[in-house]
Amino acid sequence: MGDLDYIPTREDVLAAAERIHGRVHRTPVFSSRSLSRMLGVDAVFKCENFQRVGSFKIRGATNAVLSIVDEASAVATHSSGNHGAAIALAAKEAELACVVVIPQNTRPAKREAIERYGATVVECGNTFDERQRTLQNVIDATGATYIPPFDDARIISGAGTAALELLEECDDLDQIWVPIGGGGLAAGSVLSAEGAVPVLAGEPELARDAKDSLERNELLPPLPPRTIADGLRTSLGRLNFKILREAGTQVALCSEDAISEFVERVAKHMKLVIEPSSAVPLAAIAENRDLARGKVGIILTGGNV
Amino acid sequence: MGDLDYIPTREDVLAAAERIHGRVHRTPVFSSRSLSRMLGVDAVFKCENFQRVGSFKIRGATNAVLSIVDEASAVATHSSGNHGAAIALAAKEAELACVVVIPQNTRPAKREAIERYGATVVECGNTFDERQRTLQNVIDATGATYIPPFDDARIISGAGTAALELLEECDDLDQIWVPIGGGGLAAGSVLSAEGAVPVLAGEPELARDAKDSLERNELLPPLPPRTIADGLRTSLGRLNFKILREAGTQVALCSEDAISEFVERVAKHMKLVIEPSSAVPLAAIAENRDLARGKVGIILTGGNV
Repeated sequence: MGDLDYIPTREDVLAAAERIHGRVHRTPVFSSRSLSRMLGVDAVFKCENFQRVGSFKIRGATNAVLSIVDEASAVATHSSGNHGAAIALAAKEAELACVVVIPQNTRPAKREAIERYGATVVECGNTFDERQRTLQNVIDATGATYIPPFDDARIISGAGTAALELLEECDDLDQIWVPIGGGGLAAGSVLSAEGAVPVLAGEPELARDAKDSLERNELLPPLPPRTIADGLRTSLGRLNFKILREAGTQVALCSEDAISEFVERVAKHMKLVIEPSSAVPLAAIAENRDLARGKVGIILTGGNV
Repeated sequence: MGDLDYIPTREDVLAAAERIHGRVHRTPVFSSRSLSRMLGVDAVFKCENFQRVGSFKIRGATNAVLSIVDEASAVATHSSGNHGAAIALAAKEAELACVVVIPQNTRPAKREAIERYGATVVECGNTFDERQRTLQNVIDATGATYIPPFDDARIISGAGTAALELLEECDDLDQIWVPIGGGGLAAGSVLSAEGAVPVLAGEPELARDAKDSLERNELLPPLPPRTIADGLRTSLGRLNFKILREAGTQVALCSEDAISEFVERVAKHMKLVIEPSSAVPLAAIAENRDLARGKVGIILTGGNV
């Protein structure tokens, strides 16, 4: 799994589930008659907004850190969001040093979250190239082991454990819907569902590189980071692309208005705080009525706003 | 229990629990390390914000409606908030007609909630006298049976079922904290806990009639309705006063700033939407550190904002 080209399998998700057991929350699954009515399906919600660090990202982070804890003395990553905080916490609990490279335009609350878990924060410029260069400098200087945010077998496998729990709890799902950005959650969910239950992904129209990449069968660069679903602004990962292409995963687009509307509706009717990325599958179902059907499990990925 | 002077007992709460079983949610109990740290106690939260109608009020409303369903053809009440919506839903499910008298300054969202459940809404002036007069006219004209919002044995007993469930789930609580307005929840909780676990109430400083009434041993009129905790602006009920006085219930005050702060903190750290009234016990604990101790069960009363 240390091989950055290794494509994980369902076995890796099962191993991740065992590895992170007791270290992450088994989050509850909620139903909502109001939201089901609005979406035109029988919807249940896996509440990863209640997860540690407020996001499913702790699953992959914990799996990755525990996978290397015996060989590494420090870990490093880059992130402007939940992945950084998740790696920071996982490293702290594994008693590893941790450096997180963040762009200068990272929101202060996200930076504070990373620092609260004891990681060293290193600022970089806002372009992807500057991020990569700064990260490489950090690794060269510290000998830290790099843990990528999504394009990584350990991250994908860890992310897949959310769908695994959802499927254990609801054995009659017709579909699973997730948001797609880098594609770690979508790919991990595909591995968990293993063809038995189709996994569909919602993507903001403004960040439609995953849809276009899968439809053109060619990994395309990300679009300018404009969607309010800031967790989904990244480009689709290589491994994730391969897994999703292999599975024939469908991606449904949604508007920014619908994303905001469903953040509000989930607050009003379910009394849950979710981040915009979490509302993307709901918005995508609402705007693609022909795709969603039957009993639908939706992963609410996080609640950090 | 039709007698408006009847003081309910723990037996009535147990009967209410049986009566409303399956018609209201058994809401989950959450813990939060972050909030526990902020409050300086080991806190668990009974999430009545997830309750039907978004408030514990459906418990008393369902109990009251089911208590009279065989004799009444219609019910009437007055409310500018959750009680009106709760009675409307309970009446609809019992196939009784329902009239809710609301002040002209009721927020449109609250009015819509009442109408959504099929009740007839009758507007009145904003003073308590105008409310009473309009309600009497409605009752005279329709023959509807009046269900008071809190000063009523059936409402108190129904409200008490929340604490009953909390105590079933957590058998090691040192205290239960609730907000106090009319006092239905506080009185019902006292009956449920029956001296085994002390019930303490949080009250906004701006609406401190319950604290003053209990300390002076004299039922005082309400203060001007200025607190943001709009569910707690009413005066303490007569029966509720008697039950709380008998139990020696302590009331702890809190500032408006602390109420707002804990609404935010619960959103940020627990990812829950709660209404300001729900944050009042948390604010009161934070501002009265000497009163709270050990393992504390807090009832988050509602999430309608």
